[in-house]
Amino acid sequence: MSSPHTATTEPTALDRACAHPPPLGEHLRSPQLRAAMLVQQEVLSAARQFLRDQGFTELLPPMVGPVTDPGGRGAKAVDVDYYGHRYKLMTSAILYKQASLRGFAKLFYIAPNLRVEPPETTTTGRHLVEFHQIDVEIADADREEAQAIASGLLGQAVHHVGHAVPDLLRELGRDAADFAPLLSGPFERYTHAQAVELLRARGHAQNPDAEIDWEGERMLSLSSEKPFFVDDYPKGSRGFYDREDPHRPGVLRNFDLLAHGGYGELASGSERETHYPTLITRIRESGENPAKYAWYLDLAREGLPHSAGFGMGLERLVRFLTGLDTLWQVSAYPKLPGVAAP
Amino acid sequence: MSSPHTATTEPTALDRACAHPPPLGEHLRSPQLRAAMLVQQEVLSAARQFLRDQGFTELLPPMVGPVTDPGGRGAKAVDVDYYGHRYKLMTSAILYKQASLRGFAKLFYIAPNLRVEPPETTTTGRHLVEFHQIDVEIADADREEAQAIASGLLGQAVHHVGHAVPDLLRELGRDAADFAPLLSGPFERYTHAQAVELLRARGHAQNPDAEIDWEGERMLSLSSEKPFFVDDYPKGSRGFYDREDPHRPGVLRNFDLLAHGGYGELASGSERETHYPTLITRIRESGENPAKYAWYLDLAREGLPHSAGFGMGLERLVRFLTGLDTLWQVSAYPKLPGVAAP
Repeated sequence: MSSPHTATTEPTALDRACAHPPPLGEHLRSPQLRAAMLVQQEVLSAARQFLRDQGFTELLPPMVGPVTDPGGRGAKAVDVDYYGHRYKLMTSAILYKQASLRGFAKLFYIAPNLRVEPPETTTTGRHLVEFHQIDVEIADADREEAQAIASGLLGQAVHHVGHAVPDLLRELGRDAADFAPLLSGPFERYTHAQAVELLRARGHAQNPDAEIDWEGERMLSLSSEKPFFVDDYPKGSRGFYDREDPHRPGVLRNFDLLAHGGYGELASGSERETHYPTLITRIRESGENPAKYAWYLDLAREGLPHSAGFGMGLERLVRFLTGLDTLWQVSAYPKLPGVAAP
Repeated sequence: MSSPHTATTEPTALDRACAHPPPLGEHLRSPQLRAAMLVQQEVLSAARQFLRDQGFTELLPPMVGPVTDPGGRGAKAVDVDYYGHRYKLMTSAILYKQASLRGFAKLFYIAPNLRVEPPETTTTGRHLVEFHQIDVEIADADREEAQAIASGLLGQAVHHVGHAVPDLLRELGRDAADFAPLLSGPFERYTHAQAVELLRARGHAQNPDAEIDWEGERMLSLSSEKPFFVDDYPKGSRGFYDREDPHRPGVLRNFDLLAHGGYGELASGSERETHYPTLITRIRESGENPAKYAWYLDLAREGLPHSAGFGMGLERLVRFLTGLDTLWQVSAYPKLPGVAAP
């Protein structure tokens, strides 16, 4: 157990010590896992209530499909043989969320995902191969509306868990002060360029054309006392479906939501690209073959609704709430990158 | 849309006509799918509320693992390459439910499953390759306690949906009379042997050593006016984890819950085998290699809690509630056996 100020995203002695879970029988019986699972149940309950109150419908995503989110940062999708076709396990439900806007203007999934992360992420404390996202999509919304829903969802989860299971949080070493600034008002917003500048001023060589790296994220996260947004990631650092700002070529209308206290990224989102020829170009630019995306591009040609949305990592949110050191502590059957496990 | 008395489990002209969904763009926009998704949302809400009120905790199952339920009736698990290991997508969460009883004596999952069904099930109207189960497990419970929870869950789902979205059910052609007997009292129980006898008396050549076949299920389902249980399936017809009756060798302490009106099986359950040497024997008898089940058998050797539980098919339950002809009508991205689809 740690206070937020000892949690890190870089491998430390502590992280390395607890990079691997105990034997399964012991893990499943541990009071810590039990507490985390009860917190997770309350998080899900709060998320569902909040989103339904805002007019969202809960749908269920598929597990496999001909394509999935090509992803980034070296994470890969797993192939499956589907009646002789090469399918993939979902790395994110983004394509399906967009498509289902045809039936529901506001929708969400609690989506299971699997990403084959490179083994070097085993000790970040922030990566599991199997994880879940609270995956939200809103027709005719812009980035700022998606951010308002993400803020509201996070606030509601923190508020509800604090009231539903306060003893569990106390047992885990969390207290109300850890979340008071979060509950007190709106979150700050930085642009990616501002975040890069802040990091460079502190001597961290953040690449201005890429995602904020783990160490950069950790530095930003540790120096804040409440969650904050980073907007406007550079094109090339993110998925082809993140819409490019029409007035600022090379800048995407997207965002990350980062937690304070060293817990780092909780959610990623964007306005979506829906223009068929632009999608083709963006897919090609990302090194992918548009033919693989046939079903999705067919719908895009007919017309996908404009939308914005985000995916919030469920296990990351539970880790943030419980103050635990690593993600495996909040998963009953944790799968660490590169490690065979049930 | 059909009245319950035209729904069937065998390919009929109607089933064949609607065995394949319309183009995806059209399907996603259809008022019928929209109604089914709203019913599904209410079913999930009712199930969660009912189970939490009964002291159950909602947990999340894994997507892949070294082994899964070996299943039956020709359905197969899909292989995935997991960091060089041959893993499987979950066909059911049974092994994980049992293991997680170490932390929670009453637990449930809304579990996504994938079973590569033989292509001949494409036209049953009752099979999707991807589907979900409301997966329930109860420590120190016997079959009758699991059946009481299954009955209560079904009753609560029907009651809640009838009150939350009555207009949707009416639009779909369902009315209160379709569910009045269900809500009026306990469900009948037949043994498998009695069910076989009933079917043979009606001229249907049901094999007494096997699962009730599709046509047999349909006949039983059509001749009832409320759901009913079939108990005591013969050993060999079901999974190695279904406990054999200690007083009646060859008979399993298990059950199916079948809907009336031709909708057939909604849930399957059993008391679980937990005795380590017996599990080894049962796995061998089912033609499987116990070595594959290492993580599970290690826990069994340490001691799995006695338990009983069941899995209720979510899409089957939604189809039953909506009175629709086939399962693809209640799935946004339906995957029919043998057919490539998003």
